[in-house]
Amino acid sequence: MSNEIQPIRWEDGMLWLLDQRLLPQQERTLAYQDWRAVVGAIRDMVVRGAPAIGVTAAYALALAAKELEGTDWRPVFCDICEEVSQARPTAVNLVWAVNRMRDAAEGVAADRPYEKLLAAAKEIHANDIETNRALASHGAALIPNKGRVLTICNTGALATGGYGTALGVIRAAHEQSREPYVWVSETRPRLQGMRLTAWELEKLGVPYRIITDNMAGSLMRQGRVELVIAGADRIAANGDTANKIGTYSLAVLAKSHGIPFYIAAPTSTIDLTIETGDKIPIEERSEEEITEIGGVRMAPIGARSYNPAFDVTPNELITGIITETGVLSAPFGEALQRRTY
Amino acid sequence: MSNEIQPIRWEDGMLWLLDQRLLPQQERTLAYQDWRAVVGAIRDMVVRGAPAIGVTAAYALALAAKELEGTDWRPVFCDICEEVSQARPTAVNLVWAVNRMRDAAEGVAADRPYEKLLAAAKEIHANDIETNRALASHGAALIPNKGRVLTICNTGALATGGYGTALGVIRAAHEQSREPYVWVSETRPRLQGMRLTAWELEKLGVPYRIITDNMAGSLMRQGRVELVIAGADRIAANGDTANKIGTYSLAVLAKSHGIPFYIAAPTSTIDLTIETGDKIPIEERSEEEITEIGGVRMAPIGARSYNPAFDVTPNELITGIITETGVLSAPFGEALQRRTY
Repeated sequence: MSNEIQPIRWEDGMLWLLDQRLLPQQERTLAYQDWRAVVGAIRDMVVRGAPAIGVTAAYALALAAKELEGTDWRPVFCDICEEVSQARPTAVNLVWAVNRMRDAAEGVAADRPYEKLLAAAKEIHANDIETNRALASHGAALIPNKGRVLTICNTGALATGGYGTALGVIRAAHEQSREPYVWVSETRPRLQGMRLTAWELEKLGVPYRIITDNMAGSLMRQGRVELVIAGADRIAANGDTANKIGTYSLAVLAKSHGIPFYIAAPTSTIDLTIETGDKIPIEERSEEEITEIGGVRMAPIGARSYNPAFDVTPNELITGIITETGVLSAPFGEALQRRTY
Repeated sequence: MSNEIQPIRWEDGMLWLLDQRLLPQQERTLAYQDWRAVVGAIRDMVVRGAPAIGVTAAYALALAAKELEGTDWRPVFCDICEEVSQARPTAVNLVWAVNRMRDAAEGVAADRPYEKLLAAAKEIHANDIETNRALASHGAALIPNKGRVLTICNTGALATGGYGTALGVIRAAHEQSREPYVWVSETRPRLQGMRLTAWELEKLGVPYRIITDNMAGSLMRQGRVELVIAGADRIAANGDTANKIGTYSLAVLAKSHGIPFYIAAPTSTIDLTIETGDKIPIEERSEEEITEIGGVRMAPIGARSYNPAFDVTPNELITGIITETGVLSAPFGEALQRRTY
């Protein structure tokens, strides 16, 4: 494997996904030829992260198009689009990517949709990386020299087509020799911070420490955090932002300590059809994600848990939203309208 | 094992500790005859929880007295007191119990300190349970009917001589048919909430759900928490309170949602020699407590973590301190002076 982290790869007519459930202990890449299996991979979190889910969905539809070559494919493709878009409920990039693939399908005249739809998926993938680089370069300027940045979950190359959103911003700051230092919130229940973000930071050579999610407030109180930056799974028209569970608590803590709190996400994460955050559907995942860790049951037999995968941070707690078109400031409503395509 | 949870037991001239590192998967009780091994048990967290550490330390000194019977025991006993009191740095109940044992030793005339010191240890143990029941009954009145109470770490029978402090308050409310519902914050890194508090609540028949620590804010925002209650490892003279890491974040979140935040602790947790919270020594534990869970490494090889075991909640975030002498309200300074012996 090259030094560049490639969570999603198209090669030999197949989709290759780095199995993120096994990282960092094991680097295993799985090959997919069937769109149904790709939907399963999204659901089971072989691949995760809003932008990465979008890119993967696009390739799933390219695989579907391949299967449908030479048939009366349009109605079936339409149904498949529906199914793919429902693989997970919160990240809107999934719907966005499916819509772009639907648009691409409209332009296909013949009964050979594969070539054109594969090209569209590849374009979505390439654009996502470009978009990340653009937003990362806008965001890097916000990180003070040697700034200590607290982040949650994984928003790096693994969460996207490549490069990263919130972690991309930190990465760009590092590449610009601003010497950022990162507090990696481990991000229970699935530990994407400890498992994935730490793995990426090790590869990038960015200094960091892993903390448990409940340490953030104490570090802020001690004056050891200059900036908080998180990704997004869906941004409502007013700027309210759904992201990994725990993001809201960080935003409240940042506000009460006078620390800037930024969201970094491509404009494909913005959902202008949803006015406010309360309307964003929040995925509830299995209780075992909490009560079992690494396959080992930690809770007593019979113990119940509650496992919402995301929460919503209201716009008034957000200092700015970093997108590929620039850094948007409050009030977000108008800026989001203007910057979203 | 009876239905009553007994973390600490004196029987057949030995100290028996329920090994809390193995709960809830395994209920194993370890027998101790050597005070040095008891110090190790405190350090390794076979037993944990500020009041339980105090009671255990008292029995350790009774075992030391047994070993010293018939010798010129005073100077050696004094050194042992010093060593026992340093087993862990943050919980002041340890120092408190050692001081009480020192006082008891002063009253021993002969070269036979064992009987008197064992009696003193048993008294500390019995008093702790009594104290818990008293504070629990004061605190139970603060829980509204069917109130949803969020708590952190384990502050139940396991954390004390028996019964519990913050969890004792919830237990008393349950016994009074107030039907409390508990959000159990799992409490990383050692998961005392998920492993121990859930185990106690199962035994007590109190309804609860385990959540990850980063879910608290989101639940509060949804109006699903009526009250937050936590224990304490040390309370400074002005009311600033050291407790399990994460307590401070909960206090900030509670404040910003207008939810009452209570500390429940016996007066033996109050340290009038320390003016403010910044002076409380905070134990830093091993990095592996975070990066390994259940013996399995979750973080990448080489990944570093930061692991303070406690944080300090400033008095202005605390609605009240529930002690065996009643519920103290702000400003705490005078009340703490008056209620502490």
